[in-house]
Amino acid sequence: MLLVWSCLYSYSSYAQLEKVEPPFWWAGMEKSEIQVLFYGTNIADFSISVQEEIPVTGVIKTENPNYIFVSIETQDVAAGTIHFDFKKKGKLQFTREYELKERAEHAADREGYTSSDVIYLLMPDRFANGDPDNDSVKGLDDKLDRSKSGGRHGGDIQGITEHLDYLEELGVTAIWSTPLLEDNDPAYSYHTYAQSDVYTIDPRYGSNADYKNLASALHKRDMKLIMDYVTNHWGAQHWMIKDLPSYDWINQFPGYAQSNYRMETQFDPHKSDSDFKYCVDGWFVKTMPDLNQQNPLVVNYLIQNAIWWIEYADLDGLRVDTYSYNDKEGIATWTKAIMDEFPNFNIVGEVWLHNQAQIAYWQKDSKIGAIQNYNTYLPSVMDFTLHNAVEHMFAEEGGWGSGIMKAYDNFVNDFLYPNPDNLLVFLENHDTRRFNDIYDQDINAYKLGLSLIATTRGIPQLYYGSELGMRGDKSKGDGDIRRDFPGGWEADAQNAFSASERTAQQQAFFEFTKKILNWRKTSKAVHSGELTQYIPEHNVYVYFRSLGAEKVMVVLNNNETDQTLDLARFAADLKTTSGTDIITSQTIALTDTLTVAAKTPMIIQLN
Amino acid sequence: MLLVWSCLYSYSSYAQLEKVEPPFWWAGMEKSEIQVLFYGTNIADFSISVQEEIPVTGVIKTENPNYIFVSIETQDVAAGTIHFDFKKKGKLQFTREYELKERAEHAADREGYTSSDVIYLLMPDRFANGDPDNDSVKGLDDKLDRSKSGGRHGGDIQGITEHLDYLEELGVTAIWSTPLLEDNDPAYSYHTYAQSDVYTIDPRYGSNADYKNLASALHKRDMKLIMDYVTNHWGAQHWMIKDLPSYDWINQFPGYAQSNYRMETQFDPHKSDSDFKYCVDGWFVKTMPDLNQQNPLVVNYLIQNAIWWIEYADLDGLRVDTYSYNDKEGIATWTKAIMDEFPNFNIVGEVWLHNQAQIAYWQKDSKIGAIQNYNTYLPSVMDFTLHNAVEHMFAEEGGWGSGIMKAYDNFVNDFLYPNPDNLLVFLENHDTRRFNDIYDQDINAYKLGLSLIATTRGIPQLYYGSELGMRGDKSKGDGDIRRDFPGGWEADAQNAFSASERTAQQQAFFEFTKKILNWRKTSKAVHSGELTQYIPEHNVYVYFRSLGAEKVMVVLNNNETDQTLDLARFAADLKTTSGTDIITSQTIALTDTLTVAAKTPMIIQLN
Repeated sequence: MLLVWSCLYSYSSYAQLEKVEPPFWWAGMEKSEIQVLFYGTNIADFSISVQEEIPVTGVIKTENPNYIFVSIETQDVAAGTIHFDFKKKGKLQFTREYELKERAEHAADREGYTSSDVIYLLMPDRFANGDPDNDSVKGLDDKLDRSKSGGRHGGDIQGITEHLDYLEELGVTAIWSTPLLEDNDPAYSYHTYAQSDVYTIDPRYGSNADYKNLASALHKRDMKLIMDYVTNHWGAQHWMIKDLPSYDWINQFPGYAQSNYRMETQFDPHKSDSDFKYCVDGWFVKTMPDLNQQNPLVVNYLIQNAIWWIEYADLDGLRVDTYSYNDKEGIATWTKAIMDEFPNFNIVGEVWLHNQAQIAYWQKDSKIGAIQNYNTYLPSVMDFTLHNAVEHMFAEEGGWGSGIMKAYDNFVNDFLYPNPDNLLVFLENHDTRRFNDIYDQDINAYKLGLSLIATTRGIPQLYYGSELGMRGDKSKGDGDIRRDFPGGWEADAQNAFSASERTAQQQAFFEFTKKILNWRKTSKAVHSGELTQYIPEHNVYVYFRSLGAEKVMVVLNNNETDQTLDLARFAADLKTTSGTDIITSQTIALTDTLTVAAKTPMIIQLN
Repeated sequence: MLLVWSCLYSYSSYAQLEKVEPPFWWAGMEKSEIQVLFYGTNIADFSISVQEEIPVTGVIKTENPNYIFVSIETQDVAAGTIHFDFKKKGKLQFTREYELKERAEHAADREGYTSSDVIYLLMPDRFANGDPDNDSVKGLDDKLDRSKSGGRHGGDIQGITEHLDYLEELGVTAIWSTPLLEDNDPAYSYHTYAQSDVYTIDPRYGSNADYKNLASALHKRDMKLIMDYVTNHWGAQHWMIKDLPSYDWINQFPGYAQSNYRMETQFDPHKSDSDFKYCVDGWFVKTMPDLNQQNPLVVNYLIQNAIWWIEYADLDGLRVDTYSYNDKEGIATWTKAIMDEFPNFNIVGEVWLHNQAQIAYWQKDSKIGAIQNYNTYLPSVMDFTLHNAVEHMFAEEGGWGSGIMKAYDNFVNDFLYPNPDNLLVFLENHDTRRFNDIYDQDINAYKLGLSLIATTRGIPQLYYGSELGMRGDKSKGDGDIRRDFPGGWEADAQNAFSASERTAQQQAFFEFTKKILNWRKTSKAVHSGELTQYIPEHNVYVYFRSLGAEKVMVVLNNNETDQTLDLARFAADLKTTSGTDIITSQTIALTDTLTVAAKTPMIIQLN
C-alpha cells in the first residue's frame, strides 16, 4: 500500500522534470565527472542526492529556478542504473533513473579522419529525400517548400543512407554532413546552424537512431562520418534560450549587437577592447544568440554534448562551425576536453581567414598561437588561402604571382603550420562560390583543381554535386550554391546517381573524379609522403610526393597550349626513366623531356 | 749603412704589397681578433710575424698566392703601431706598419636610429652636385652624362653636406644615402650597388674623409647617418673578383646562373634543393657576382668592413641591401657580430616580401624564424606590406578589405613581429613606384599617407623629392623614379631647396611635411607610445598613440566627402573633451561628434 502510494507520488512529481541532459552517459569515460542538467519548473527547489555510493561533486543553481546542475564522479562506477533522489525538506519526492551505459569496444581510441581520407561535404536537406513522410513535421514550424531556394526541400538521413553505393563508387571515404540537429527556426531552417535542441536529430532528417545507423553503415564500408558541430551560437528557438539559465548564458548587450566579423581582433595587439568585444560577443545573426563560452557551465554543457554524440553515434570526426568567433579560452577548453577523451580523433575548425599565419594560429601546438601563449588543441584547420587561390588561378596566365604560381605560393607558407598534413584542402564548400560556376563547367579546370587537392598534402574535401559538374551562383544567394542533387527526389526528371541517366558531361566529371579518388585510396605517398615542389615555370607546376620508395610526380599544365618540360631540372626527385599516368593508365617515358597537353594534369606513379 | 740598406730593401719589397685590409683598426674593440688581409703578387710566399708581443692566432692562405689572411688578437693591446715582418726563409724582407687607433668616446655604445627618428632616403648621384670637379674621375670608367636617365649625373657628398639646413628645416633626423663606395661598373654605376672597392668612397662622390665629415656635420645637428651596405654581392669590377682569392669566394655555377628571386625557398619546407640553391647562390644580375657567405673568410671580411665603416665614419646605422638573398647562416653571423660590437646600434634589412609572417621571419628574435631555429639578430625590417597597401588604398572606396581598411589589416598582424616599433614605414623608396606619381600629385593623398607613416608605430622613411610632390614613372625605368632634385645643380632652372623658388604646389607639399615632422620630433607618444586602432568604418580610420598621460588621436578620412564620427565609440581612449589639431593648430572640441573634412587627416594632441 505504501509502495503504491509512493509510486503514484513519484510519478506525479516526475512530470515536473522536463529535461535531463545528457540523457545518459557511459562508464569508463575519461570525462568521468559529469554535470547532469535537470530542467523543470522550480526544479531548483529540490535537493538532489544519489542513491548509490557515487560522489556528488557539485550542485549548481543558477538565477533561474528551473535549472539545476548536479555533478557526479563516475570514475569507479560500473555500467548500470543510477538513481537520483529529489527531496524537499528531507523527504523524497521522486526518483529519476540515470543510465551509465557500457562503452563500445575501442570507443576511446577511435581514429578520426586523416589525410588518407577524402571528405564529401553535403547538405542533407539538398542531397536526397529518402523519406517523404518526414518532410514536414508537427511542432517544427518551417514546412516543406521546394519552390523556395531558402526553404526546406525534404532531404534527410535516409536519403544519404540510400546512396552510399554511389559515394563509395565515387571514392570518397568520409561524409561531412552540415548540421542535423533540431533547428526550429520558423522560416529559414534548412541550413540547420540555428539549433533548438542539441540532443535531438531534427525529425525532418530522421531520428537519433537513424544517424547512428548511418555511421554504422558507413563503417561497414570503411567509410567515416563527420558531424558539423556549432559551439558559437544556438538558434533563438533553442529551449534554453527561451528560458535562459542565466543572463550570462549568452552574450547580451544593451540592444541587439551583431558581430563585426573582424576575427583579427582575436590577435591584434593594437585592438580596441570594444572592437574585440563586438567581434567575439556580438551575435552572428539575429536568429543565432551568441553562447558565452566564458561561462564554465556553458562550456561544460557543450563538451558533454559533443562527447555524447561522438560516443553515441560512433563518430569519426567533427567539423566546428565559426571556430574563431568563439571565446578563445572557452573553445580551447572545449577542444582539449574532446581530444583528451578521444586522443586519435580529428576535429577541423572553420577558421575563415586569408593569411596562413592567421589560420595557423588556430591549429594545435601552433608556434604562432604560442606568441600569445595560446593553444587551441584543434588538430585541423581549413586551407582557405588555397581555396582563394583556386578560385582564380586556373583562368590566369603565368606570372610572378599569378596562375599556377598561386598554388606554389600557398605551400611555401606551410612552415607556419604545426601540421600541414592535417589541413582540409578544398575547391569550394557550402558557403563559397561553386568551382564549376566560376570556371563555367570547364572540365579541364576541374581536372586540374581536383588533381591538385587530391595529391597535395592535406585532407581533400569535395562538395556534393561538383563530381557531376554541378553549378550554382552565389550572387543569387546561398540557396543557389545548395541546389538539390538531381535524382535525390523521386519526381526528379533525371537521376544522376545512376550512370545510365547522367549526361555525357556529368559522366565525364564523374569518371574523372572516381578514377582519381579510387587511385588515391591506394597511394600512401599521397596520404603522408613528403611534398617537394618546384617553382612553376611557364604556368606549369611540378611536385613530388615521396614515401620511402613510393613516389608520385604531379604535373599541372595551366596553359592553353601543350608544354614540354626538360626533366633534368627534376633530377633529384626523378631517379627513374618511366612511370604510369594514373589518369590515362599509360606508361610514360621520363628520360629527357615530358610533354603535357594543354590545361591538363598528369599524375605519374613512378616506377 | 746596414740601416740604409734595410730601408731600401724594405721599400722595394713593400711595393709588392698592394692592399692591406682593414687598413687600420682600433684598440679596445669587441672584435679584437682581426684578420688582416695582405694582397700582392705571390704575397703568400712570405711568412709573416708581428714584432710586438701580440698573438698571431691564424694564418690562412688560399689557392691564390696573391692573398694571405693573418689573424691577430688585439684584446690587451694598447693603441699604437704594430709591425708586421715579412720574411722568406727566416730572413726579414720588409716590415709593414699597422695602426691600432684610439677609439672615440662612446663609440661602442653609439645609439642607432629609432622610432623617434625620421629617415630621409636619397640617391647621392641625384640629390645635389656640390663639387663639379669630381663628376668624372680618371680610372673610373662611367663618366658624367646627365642626359642619360641611367648615367651619372654628378651628385656627391658635398651636395648633401651643403643642404643640411634644408633637411633640418624639413624635420627629418636621419639620412639614408644609397651606397657611396667605389663602383667601377663601366656603364651603369650611379646606383652604386655593384661595388669595386669597399674600403673607399667612390671619388665621384668624394673621399672617405668627406663621408666622415658628413656624419660629423649631421651629429652637430642631432641628426644621424645611415650607410647602405651590400653583403650579398659585389660588382664584377671589384678588385678581388678580378683576382679571386678562391673559387668559392663567390657562388659559381657551370655557366651564368641568375637568382630566381624566390626568397620563399629560404623557408619553404617543400622546396626543392635546386630551386633553393639558385635563389640564394644565383647572381642578382650579371654584373654583380654573388658572394659566398658560407665561406668564413668572406663573412669575416664583410664583418670587419662594416665595423670599420661604423667606427671610422661614426655611423648611426646600416641599411642592408637584398638581405634575404644572403646565405642564412652567414648573414646571421654577420649581423650578430655587428650588433655585438655596437649593442645599441640599428640595422634594417631589405626583406622585400609581401606577407608579414615572411617578413617577420627575418627580424631579431622572431618567433617565426624560431620555428626553423633561425635568428638573424637583425633589429629592423621594412614594412613592405604597408607599402603595398599605401600604393592603392587612398584611391579606393571603403570595403571589407579595401580603402583605409588595408592599413588596419596591416597592423593587426603586428603580433607576428618581435618588435613592431623597429619597422621602417614608408610610402615608397628608390626601387618602387613614386607615391606622387601613383596619386597624380594629389596633395590630399600625400597628406593622408604622410600622416599615417608619421604617426603609426615604426620608423618613418621618406624618399627625396616627395616633400615637394616630385613624381617619376617607374614604367619608364628606374632612372625616372630617381630624377635629379631640382636645384641640386648650379645650372638648374629652379632651386627648390630655396622656399622663394618653389612653386605654390611644391611649397604646399613642403610646408605640410615640415609641420608634421617637426611636431613629430616632440611627440614621445608617437615615438614609442602604445598604438590602439579601431576598425575603420565608412573608410575612416581612427587610432590613438598613448604614452602615460600623453595621447594623440589620429583620424584619416579617406572619403571624397566630409564624415562625422560619433565619438562615443572611442570613449575608452578619449577621456578628454578637447585637443589640438597639430596640422591646423586649432583647438578641437571632442564632445559628441567630430567632423573630418573629405580626404583629410587630423592629428589631434589630446588635452
